[in-house]
Amino acid sequence: MRVLIERIMKDGRNLGNGILKVDGFINHQVDPMLMDECGKELAARFANVGATRVLTAEISGIAPAISAARYMKLPVVYARKHKPITMPDTVYLTVAPSHTKGNMVELIVSPEYLPRGEKVLIIDDFLASGSTILGLVRLTQAAGAVVVGIGTLIEKTFEGGRNLLSSLNVPIESLACISSMEDNKITFSD
Amino acid sequence: MRVLIERIMKDGRNLGNGILKVDGFINHQVDPMLMDECGKELAARFANVGATRVLTAEISGIAPAISAARYMKLPVVYARKHKPITMPDTVYLTVAPSHTKGNMVELIVSPEYLPRGEKVLIIDDFLASGSTILGLVRLTQAAGAVVVGIGTLIEKTFEGGRNLLSSLNVPIESLACISSMEDNKITFSD
Repeated sequence: MRVLIERIMKDGRNLGNGILKVDGFINHQVDPMLMDECGKELAARFANVGATRVLTAEISGIAPAISAARYMKLPVVYARKHKPITMPDTVYLTVAPSHTKGNMVELIVSPEYLPRGEKVLIIDDFLASGSTILGLVRLTQAAGAVVVGIGTLIEKTFEGGRNLLSSLNVPIESLACISSMEDNKITFSD
Repeated sequence: MRVLIERIMKDGRNLGNGILKVDGFINHQVDPMLMDECGKELAARFANVGATRVLTAEISGIAPAISAARYMKLPVVYARKHKPITMPDTVYLTVAPSHTKGNMVELIVSPEYLPRGEKVLIIDDFLASGSTILGLVRLTQAAGAVVVGIGTLIEKTFEGGRNLLSSLNVPIESLACISSMEDNKITFSD
């Protein structure tokens, strides 16, 4: 998606070790107009998968998930990392390695908002190693629901996440694909 | 705002001790269409304050802040609770008591995205005791920026937050005002 790629080229920063800083428009400061365009594009790409619900993970998945879901007229559920007191005692919980922190984080969804039989579109900001998204897949399966698609803003193809998720046999769409971050560059594959 | 009040009456739950559960449409599952309407209304109410930036706190402030900011065509910054590795070494940090957890949480903003002189509209999901919003005010002031308005989806007027913030002399707008949660009821003041 041209507008997102151009924005990464302009404002993204390669911090080394495969870390892409997009804090100026996605992860800390958010550009709502860009996010709206990205959501519209994701909604178009998944218009025909029959999704009944969008699932994401807090924190940085929330903005793109809500933008896409608004165009699809679907509810969004974001997996929590800490169980709030408003959540019931019994929940779906899985653990996934945190990409930017090095430790394990919990991903928690209340059964109230992930009923059996739902067709789930997973949206997140990044597809890198795929471990967070795979955690969301496990939560979906634990609920007796089905993943029908996976969409992200930015994919780092060199981290292999797409391969990890390929056995699901669902469409995987990323709006900007980065094939290399070596030599302090950001190289796009499209 | 009629549509939000009706939704709280339909899907909100009074869990006792002043805890209002709105996990079905704001805090865990999000209704993006409702959030869009709320954002539009907040944008209209603050159309004339001259805001140059919207500031909120992760996690549940993100959705209403982005919705309002999209209508106002402004960037959003959400204060982080943990400093990610993409953030510079020196940041603005304050602590605020967590309303639903009982402990203190950190609120962190990078100076990159809160420049001196900015006119900041603070948006959050709840105005209760006002302590989180007051934390965002301190961050704004630390940055040499100015708060020009405070908007929330739901205000619990019986917790006194509005009074705490009144010395700022800025407009405070809430889309649904709850005056009492006693006797297992939810009583609105408008």
